[in-house]
Amino acid sequence: MRKLLLSNDDGVHAPGLKALYEALAAHARVRVVAPDRDKSGASNSLTLTRPLALTALDNGFYSVDGTPADCVYLGVNGVWDERPDLVISGINHGSNLGDDVLYSGTVAAAMEGRNLGMPAIAVSLAGSHHFATAGRVAASLVGAADSLSLPPRSLLNVNVPDLPWEAIRGFRVTRLGYRGPAQRPLPVTDPRGRTRYWIAAVGENADDGPDTDFAAVEGGYVSITPLQTDLTRHGALHDVQGWLDALSRLA
Amino acid sequence: MRKLLLSNDDGVHAPGLKALYEALAAHARVRVVAPDRDKSGASNSLTLTRPLALTALDNGFYSVDGTPADCVYLGVNGVWDERPDLVISGINHGSNLGDDVLYSGTVAAAMEGRNLGMPAIAVSLAGSHHFATAGRVAASLVGAADSLSLPPRSLLNVNVPDLPWEAIRGFRVTRLGYRGPAQRPLPVTDPRGRTRYWIAAVGENADDGPDTDFAAVEGGYVSITPLQTDLTRHGALHDVQGWLDALSRLA
Amino acid sequence: MRKLLLSNDDGVHAPGLKALYEALAAHARVRVVAPDRDKSGASNSLTLTRPLALTALDNGFYSVDGTPADCVYLGVNGVWDERPDLVISGINHGSNLGDDVLYSGTVAAAMEGRNLGMPAIAVSLAGSHHFATAGRVAASLVGAADSLSLPPRSLLNVNVPDLPWEAIRGFRVTRLGYRGPAQRPLPVTDPRGRTRYWIAAVGENADDGPDTDFAAVEGGYVSITPLQTDLTRHGALHDVQGWLDALSRLA
Amino acid sequence: MRKLLLSNDDGVHAPGLKALYEALAAHARVRVVAPDRDKSGASNSLTLTRPLALTALDNGFYSVDGTPADCVYLGVNGVWDERPDLVISGINHGSNLGDDVLYSGTVAAAMEGRNLGMPAIAVSLAGSHHFATAGRVAASLVGAADSLSLPPRSLLNVNVPDLPWEAIRGFRVTRLGYRGPAQRPLPVTDPRGRTRYWIAAVGENADDGPDTDFAAVEGGYVSITPLQTDLTRHGALHDVQGWLDALSRLA
Repeated sequence: MRKLLLSNDDGVHAPGLKALYEALAAHARVRVVAPDRDKSGASNSLTLTRPLALTALDNGFYSVDGTPADCVYLGVNGVWDERPDLVISGINHGSNLGDDVLYSGTVAAAMEGRNLGMPAIAVSLAGSHHFATAGRVAASLVGAADSLSLPPRSLLNVNVPDLPWEAIRGFRVTRLGYRGPAQRPLPVTDPRGRTRYWIAAVGENADDGPDTDFAAVEGGYVSITPLQTDLTRHGALHDVQGWLDALSRLA
Repeated sequence: MRKLLLSNDDGVHAPGLKALYEALAAHARVRVVAPDRDKSGASNSLTLTRPLALTALDNGFYSVDGTPADCVYLGVNGVWDERPDLVISGINHGSNLGDDVLYSGTVAAAMEGRNLGMPAIAVSLAGSHHFATAGRVAASLVGAADSLSLPPRSLLNVNVPDLPWEAIRGFRVTRLGYRGPAQRPLPVTDPRGRTRYWIAAVGENADDGPDTDFAAVEGGYVSITPLQTDLTRHGALHDVQGWLDALSRLA
Repeated sequence: MRKLLLSNDDGVHAPGLKALYEALAAHARVRVVAPDRDKSGASNSLTLTRPLALTALDNGFYSVDGTPADCVYLGVNGVWDERPDLVISGINHGSNLGDDVLYSGTVAAAMEGRNLGMPAIAVSLAGSHHFATAGRVAASLVGAADSLSLPPRSLLNVNVPDLPWEAIRGFRVTRLGYRGPAQRPLPVTDPRGRTRYWIAAVGENADDGPDTDFAAVEGGYVSITPLQTDLTRHGALHDVQGWLDALSRLA
Repeated sequence: MRKLLLSNDDGVHAPGLKALYEALAAHARVRVVAPDRDKSGASNSLTLTRPLALTALDNGFYSVDGTPADCVYLGVNGVWDERPDLVISGINHGSNLGDDVLYSGTVAAAMEGRNLGMPAIAVSLAGSHHFATAGRVAASLVGAADSLSLPPRSLLNVNVPDLPWEAIRGFRVTRLGYRGPAQRPLPVTDPRGRTRYWIAAVGENADDGPDTDFAAVEGGYVSITPLQTDLTRHGALHDVQGWLDALSRLA
């Protein structure tokens, strides 16, 4: 029986996580290790300044006082003897499209699984109603995961429209789109007269062409984007070398 | 006069930040906005659940009760009317090589600048002694930044050996190397008898060939790696599409 | 029907809070507002540097990303139009005896209710098994609360032995006992070689005479201690005045 | 030479702490252990869920990633072999009058010293300008501390008007005054449309008669209030016993 590790960034009590568990538990051995509170926006952060507490809850889920990446690290890497076959993160409350993937704790949880050698899938729902749809998508992908061969340092980022299953128009393989720069911070005055700044909403879409994840979800399709964790801009190595050579000649 | 925004992840009181400021302040207009405490490992996380406090310190630096990405967002995007020309993050206490870039707050600060449309450089010292060397490296790169043309969504990750300037053997353009999976967590028992888990040290180098950042720094060279913030694994789009088509035929 | 506000410091998902709710919900209108995670040891701390999020959970409880005192402040003071008649905090997992009351978030939640003008009771179980016993104690005290007249700035601190109801030997009114100084901190070395210090276990009992809360619980009795929130040491005003006068003569 | 431990709740970089150090360092051996960031409102909270990092700064002060009480616990209780003779906390930025003492981290730091067996003084400035005045007050009290005999579990809470030394009218021994209930929370809407609540400003003074700390500071006098850490309301023990007896007869 396939062994799955589930995590998320909305926290161990989030409905999306429960929906994911319910969609997968019948056909696999499922362990759930998730943050004890909402860690949306945690990105890949790991907790290095203190040890982590792992608490078994009444429903069998494990709660960690840390980040999504912390949870997957503990779940994959040695608290238990047996390693999972696959790491699934989600179902996120809200989409993770375009630039979001750099900030998302949901994607980071999947990346951490990938960095530890596991195949990994991040699943997000572009809304907060149809978690069952996203659960069914997750179950389909998990069922077929053995036949997918991805290059090393790769994972899948899946976004599901917030629609009933019957209204989903199909699946699309997409590239990430991109948003423009975020809006300016919103200043607020606290009750003691001090100014503070809220990080504002994300920018307008700057690149949401037909092959992007934005366009797929907007059109009612499940978006599947293969992501990489190798951040080297290989195509720029030559140009940077040229620049460096020019500098040296000048020096 | 060129306008620079400096940040880091070791916190506004870190010696590496002061060294960076001292290396750059003579030839540019420099603003410093950095976290109020050590945020190493913060990755790209942004603070969305509360507004941020920005505090002017006696030395003219600004302190923020948030992450490195928060600091750059506030510094670039509208607390002040004037935008910087360039974002420099560092000098990190310790190297940021290979997989480190996914977790590093120093690299994330530069990425945030890049996402907001600025050229950006992350600078790390592979140790804790020769910050002046890394400061001199930063000053050289900043001085030449106008002549470097990088593709969109790119930035430079710079690692400097912990050596006196005279002992540096040169500059090398590199790709990221990779470490193997991190070691297993270290269990500890707290004074009340409860087990907790420390995230362990990073794994052994798994890919540190001669063209990597690992090898450059090990050999006494300054390593310069162009990074990208587009995480799409473009080369895998075709294979994932084939997999999806096969699934559909089966369904 | 009596209106109760319940809170705790072990967090909104703690079994002790659920037990308290179940013991009281049949005979009163009960609102529950509790921290989203374990805040044991939070003392009277209030969150002043950021606004608080109040989240309605599926079970009707409210979760706050703050301290026990934050929760009671929000629950009593104006999020809802109707104020409670009584604030009950607990059931704490573990006793709150002697010096504990200065550090306890459970006692602080009751104090916050008291400071906002409500009668208030803190309930703790000296263990983790017989929450139903403590629930029954709480229900008895709440039922009789109207006939108790306490001076201003007073509240009740209740500790219940971890025994079946039948094994409880009775109720005792007690004074706080005192422990000796806490043990020395426990140094630990983290996986990166840095020393850190755990706060050690509490000290040995230094004053646990027959009229103390320590002795009552130890003997199988429910301990009820009236607490005050006026910290003036009235009995020392005269001596400090004498000391000050002597200083002035010398000056 | 007298050995002093200094701490505060405004953080190790706060001007008030530096002013206190400068006022005392000439005539005593002074160690400074303070939180790494602003911990105002931390009350007596102790950090029990993780070990604490103690960092030596360039100026010789020690920084702790914890609360004021954590700092004093580490500073008094065994990181160093030698114990201090006296714990001084402050100079707080802003007064700590009346009910404030229950929430104040400055007062809590002094209480922690007291709980560990040291004489202790908390010093606050009712403003942010004349730290030198408060420093001079602290030096006077420290110089005379040997001749003051307080009962066990007692400490001094000192508030200094924000005036030049020459404008101070004298010293007064006071009791704590009291404020009325805090104002209602201030709702704010975050940039994502969610309501959050700021804890509002403190209430109006409800008890600021001529013998209170409020009145002394308002009148230009240094206020000295002896505080106790025994929270038992001894005067109510009899009444609670009567109430309990009545309950038993009814049962």
